[in-house]
Amino acid sequence: MKSRAAVAFAPGEPLKIVELDIEPPKAGEVLVKITHTGVCHTDAFTLSGSDPEGVFPAVLGHEGAGIVVQVGEGVTSVQPGDHVIPLYTAECGECLFCKSGKTNLCVAVRATQGKGVMPDGTTRFSYQGQPIYHYMGCSTFSEYTVVAEVSLAKISPEANPQHVCLLGCGVTTGIGVVHNTAKVQEGDTVAVFGLGGIGLAVVQGARQAKAGRIIVVDTNPDKFKLAKEFGATDCLNPKDHADPIQQVIVEMTGWGVDHSFECIGNTQVMRSALESSHRGWGQSVIIGVAGAGQEISTRPFQLVTGRTWKGTAFGGVKGRTQLPKMVEDAMKGDIQLEPFVTHTMGLDEINHAFDLMHDGKSIRTVIHFTEPSA
Amino acid sequence: MKSRAAVAFAPGEPLKIVELDIEPPKAGEVLVKITHTGVCHTDAFTLSGSDPEGVFPAVLGHEGAGIVVQVGEGVTSVQPGDHVIPLYTAECGECLFCKSGKTNLCVAVRATQGKGVMPDGTTRFSYQGQPIYHYMGCSTFSEYTVVAEVSLAKISPEANPQHVCLLGCGVTTGIGVVHNTAKVQEGDTVAVFGLGGIGLAVVQGARQAKAGRIIVVDTNPDKFKLAKEFGATDCLNPKDHADPIQQVIVEMTGWGVDHSFECIGNTQVMRSALESSHRGWGQSVIIGVAGAGQEISTRPFQLVTGRTWKGTAFGGVKGRTQLPKMVEDAMKGDIQLEPFVTHTMGLDEINHAFDLMHDGKSIRTVIHFTEPSA
Repeated sequence: MKSRAAVAFAPGEPLKIVELDIEPPKAGEVLVKITHTGVCHTDAFTLSGSDPEGVFPAVLGHEGAGIVVQVGEGVTSVQPGDHVIPLYTAECGECLFCKSGKTNLCVAVRATQGKGVMPDGTTRFSYQGQPIYHYMGCSTFSEYTVVAEVSLAKISPEANPQHVCLLGCGVTTGIGVVHNTAKVQEGDTVAVFGLGGIGLAVVQGARQAKAGRIIVVDTNPDKFKLAKEFGATDCLNPKDHADPIQQVIVEMTGWGVDHSFECIGNTQVMRSALESSHRGWGQSVIIGVAGAGQEISTRPFQLVTGRTWKGTAFGGVKGRTQLPKMVEDAMKGDIQLEPFVTHTMGLDEINHAFDLMHDGKSIRTVIHFTEPSA
Repeated sequence: MKSRAAVAFAPGEPLKIVELDIEPPKAGEVLVKITHTGVCHTDAFTLSGSDPEGVFPAVLGHEGAGIVVQVGEGVTSVQPGDHVIPLYTAECGECLFCKSGKTNLCVAVRATQGKGVMPDGTTRFSYQGQPIYHYMGCSTFSEYTVVAEVSLAKISPEANPQHVCLLGCGVTTGIGVVHNTAKVQEGDTVAVFGLGGIGLAVVQGARQAKAGRIIVVDTNPDKFKLAKEFGATDCLNPKDHADPIQQVIVEMTGWGVDHSFECIGNTQVMRSALESSHRGWGQSVIIGVAGAGQEISTRPFQLVTGRTWKGTAFGGVKGRTQLPKMVEDAMKGDIQLEPFVTHTMGLDEINHAFDLMHDGKSIRTVIHFTEPSA
């Protein structure tokens, strides 16, 4: 069958809207009609060519919501008509990692997902007879996509897909990291570096956790208004300070914050975030994805004096078991999604969505697929 | 009064045995007669001039045992005749850090200790009328020393001071880090980088914790025999492997070890240790002290895929409340100290003790003060 899609034919080039050929799902796979997808910085990062795992040509997009159309052989956990969110962090429930109880980093489809192919090593997308690669196991910039069964969270059919698509990445990551990775407790101090979708979700998560002080840091002061609505108590623009921002934070808090979060992917900011954290017990969590070959560094004294440096993927959330509950939280208003959606548009305008994001003018643009089913 | 001491007059020079003048303890201070002291790599590190906090001339030494001789005004927790171990990590019980329940990094005497002076900003040692600085709040290379009350653990008078002096630093650090910082659980896999006194103590701690596999790494295979006696299951000499040692460890364990410990102070080894740890949940703890200006680095991907980088000082042990129990453990044989003591000698031979350590020929030399009390 055919599917309308925005294809990244080469790094650094705008996406092209084309009609792909898409094969039916094989064993353990599911064909999903994507109804909505967010456009995330990680898509832009891969499109830029900086992502060491980036493969081209590919269908990007990893923050979507949709409906199951067809299931492959052996698929039992979803059926046509089910509302789903594709997961770039699968959950097979059977691997060493899923069984550990310590991490969400399932390895069921990891090796092939990183190469842009399905678990059997091939692609379901093609264009003019040439294979088009998958992306993060999701490829939500196509009206129809094929994903592994273990990469699908089944969610309430009552949920608003234009909002809950954001739970496919940024918002879940930001809220999940607060509860699963950092385990913020009531009264703790928090610093959030970078107020994109993830950073703003961290602010929401910190308020859920009843953090005592939520310091946000961004060079774009336009972001502060929404951050304050979500619960930020102090807004810092590094451009307003002569001293390094970690020094400013340590001074304003006495010894640093209990938890800091890097939500950008900038290795210098990762260092600032670590060094903003409290002597003795502060922890800093890296969420952003850095460019290929970039490294973090600090003096080991920072760790020897009690700071902890961590990272997270998808906020430590196990998608199939935990995401349905987060969708329900969003339906009840316990997670606010609507404020993130600053723009909506059709697939044809997707390059404009990237421009808005690069210019810092959007939090999230949600793309809707208005065409009738093929 | 006079005190025989080994003084570091300048970085890089041998210690000189001289008779110092020592003032009586001021308020909150205690005069201790040191009976035994270990010679630790940290003393050598400071003596080398690489320690950014190093102040000269100074009385080094921080791994001692002794007996209280005289107490200053207001001192209530110890009295003359009490057996004590001086603590370079004080425990005041009243500061933000002591009260947090999250760290042993008391700040009561931190600022002055780092400058080589007592809390009132002056020294109790002098030589030919010139002040001689204190070191790590202990200065155990002097037969008599003055320490803050909050820097003294009162221990059983029945303990063998020639052995339990080692609980003043290395052994406590190595055993403490396993239980307090890493929290090793039964069956966990462990890698220990560097088999000096601390590394060997980590091996003991890991066996106490019933670790499933204890991999030790050292370029000096002479260390492997004692490591095996303490519980090491696999001994690796990086010189025997063409691949980086982290790759060897990841391959031999599948995904890396649950816990790794850097016990050297080498920033490259700190990276190897982190990268030897398990995807998803592995943690690496830095124990060694790196040279001034040296930095650790890694790809942030190492953390984003679930590894945690930590550090520890004094193994997370709160000296005044926890060390007395560790002394009792040593008296019962639950902590083995005797195998660490490969050499004993008088103060006059202390430079030889440093040579033995540099040449990798000793685990610990214990210095005994044979002169009668002044």
